[in-house]
Amino acid sequence: LQEGEVAPPPPVVHYHMNNVTTTSDPVGNRESVLILTPLARFYEEYWDNLCRISYPHDLISLGFIIPKGRDGNLATLQLQERITKTQAPTNKNRFASITILRQDSEPPVAQTESERHALGAQKERRAAMSRARNSLLFTILGPTTSWVLWLDSDIIETPPSLIQDLASHDKAIIVPNCFQRYYNKDKEAMEVRPYDFNSWIDSPTAKGLGEKMGPDEILLEGYAEMATYRSLMAYMADTNGDPRREIDLDGVGGTALLVKAEVHRDGAMFPPFPFYHLIETEGFAKMAQRLGWRATGLPNYFVYHYDE
Amino acid sequence: LQEGEVAPPPPVVHYHMNNVTTTSDPVGNRESVLILTPLARFYEEYWDNLCRISYPHDLISLGFIIPKGRDGNLATLQLQERITKTQAPTNKNRFASITILRQDSEPPVAQTESERHALGAQKERRAAMSRARNSLLFTILGPTTSWVLWLDSDIIETPPSLIQDLASHDKAIIVPNCFQRYYNKDKEAMEVRPYDFNSWIDSPTAKGLGEKMGPDEILLEGYAEMATYRSLMAYMADTNGDPRREIDLDGVGGTALLVKAEVHRDGAMFPPFPFYHLIETEGFAKMAQRLGWRATGLPNYFVYHYDE
Ligand SMILES: Nc1nc2c(ncn2[C@@H]2O[C@H](COP(=O)(O)OP(=O)(O)O)[C@@H](O)[C@H]2O)c(=O)[nH]1
Ligand SMILES: Nc1nc2c(ncn2[C@@H]2O[C@H](COP(=O)(O)OP(=O)(O)O)[C@@H](O)[C@H]2O)c(=O)[nH]1
Ligand SMILES: [Mn+2]
Ligand SMILES: [Mn+2]
Repeated sequence: LQEGEVAPPPPVVHYHMNNVTTTSDPVGNRESVLILTPLARFYEEYWDNLCRISYPHDLISLGFIIPKGRDGNLATLQLQERITKTQAPTNKNRFASITILRQDSEPPVAQTESERHALGAQKERRAAMSRARNSLLFTILGPTTSWVLWLDSDIIETPPSLIQDLASHDKAIIVPNCFQRYYNKDKEAMEVRPYDFNSWIDSPTAKGLGEKMGPDEILLEGYAEMATYRSLMAYMADTNGDPRREIDLDGVGGTALLVKAEVHRDGAMFPPFPFYHLIETEGFAKMAQRLGWRATGLPNYFVYHYDE
Repeated sequence: LQEGEVAPPPPVVHYHMNNVTTTSDPVGNRESVLILTPLARFYEEYWDNLCRISYPHDLISLGFIIPKGRDGNLATLQLQERITKTQAPTNKNRFASITILRQDSEPPVAQTESERHALGAQKERRAAMSRARNSLLFTILGPTTSWVLWLDSDIIETPPSLIQDLASHDKAIIVPNCFQRYYNKDKEAMEVRPYDFNSWIDSPTAKGLGEKMGPDEILLEGYAEMATYRSLMAYMADTNGDPRREIDLDGVGGTALLVKAEVHRDGAMFPPFPFYHLIETEGFAKMAQRLGWRATGLPNYFVYHYDE
């Protein structure tokens, strides 16, 4: 400021929440999408896929949360390198804005696929991930966001029209089927297999198990030790079926998950504590249900998880 | 932009969450405070009191959420009028920023004090208020906020050092005693009486009542029909006692309530659904407890609610 000049008044901003629409034509209605990614490891293929997303990038903001520590530092550097190129002033296809949060804690356990998925490690690990997701959500969700797309950092392949396709169903919460491409040694060929078992329809068995549990115990999916007889979306896939086929879900996975921002604004978060014996994204679906929202799954619409 | 010029790259912002401290010396450490107010009615005395808050105003951002409809329109106009003066470029004491959200819904019931407090109206009303608080929180909490001060629009008198005083206890959640000044006709004098009964220590009776309730029923405080035998902070006040006296609380009221932002970032919100048979600010305290945080009450430190 020059001498004698007065500083401009600080901003007073009004937002009319009914102007922040979420419709089945988000591109036509210029609706803002916030892509949120908890990021413990960086995959080049994730960024490549993200850049191929065909939803107008000027309507997309990105938010990342990265743990403290060596692995987090490496992931931050790798992310930063790709950002610098993608967000170059000369790149017409750059994103509207990017926010990176560095946590003040490290992930609780080692991060190989088998270690992560050991039943004993799940509760602590998924509680930590819930806190990371909540920090990201509470900190970055702004007044102009219409949709939140949760996208894990190891989702390396989606249809480029992912956002338009999911939004076109006009659902509060919608989740594609998360599969994994892998090399089948016997057949000497690439094949696909289900990866995420957190999208399911509840069963009387699981409800009964829940009723007999102590308040701090959790139900987990995909473990032989704990047969829930829930209907898993992972097993309902028909690769030749209608990709627009919808099913009602009681639990959802978060590897790729589109949520109307108003669902989060109502209070739906990722419980790090057992909520109806559910935590993280499965607990989120239950919490959204308690708020009056429903979750939808697309068994024949696929995204792909990295194979370690 | 001039022809041939390229637009500046959109922002890429890094935040290290361990730089966002919450200490007992927030002024010395230049910690940002977000004051959040759900506002159905505007009181001039609220704004007068707010302006007298001695915490550095350049570290304070304000957030309001106002319902749709005639009353909301009036409240917005009245608020806007005071803002225009307070935020004038020549006013050195103006706040850092102000955000006003207009809801897309109206409050569920009429808003006189007796109608509001009728037991039958409480569940729907407090659910609506929870949603309003959550919208405000999820939408406005940003990456640089250290503390969130919840302050109802009908809190018309607090010590000017409210924020410093509460923060100096260095607690995750801290709540003063909310009283009301009123005219005692018999004594022909102004007196004080307790107003907010939502700050309490749990009792075996209340726990027993909760255990016998259906999952959608709620426990409410301050109703003869439902004797909980909880210890109410409202009745522990000693006007000559040590204002720094602390008690542990299980439920908190939200008329004035200081919360470390990390508690909210962890996921603590205001459940609009029964959560352990509690909703809104009382449910918030329980949720924070499930996240590992504790609430503290100051029975001898007072703020005052408007008397209708
Ligand atoms: N910020 C953060 N991200 C994490 C943490 N743990 C895992 N992630 C990320 O969260 C997502 C899901 O974790 P992942 O280990 O892939 O889960 P899985 O595929 O279900 O085994 C991925 O994007 C991870 O990079 C953590 O402690 N902090
Ligand atoms: N935005 C919004 N604010 C509300 C609504 N209902 C009440 N409030 C505000 O929420 C706070 C608490 O409500 P109030 O009616 O005073 O509650 P009481 O003092 O406990 O009876 C006050 O600041 C009100 O102005 C609502 O539906 N929407
Ligand atoms: Mn993964
Ligand atoms: Mn009030």
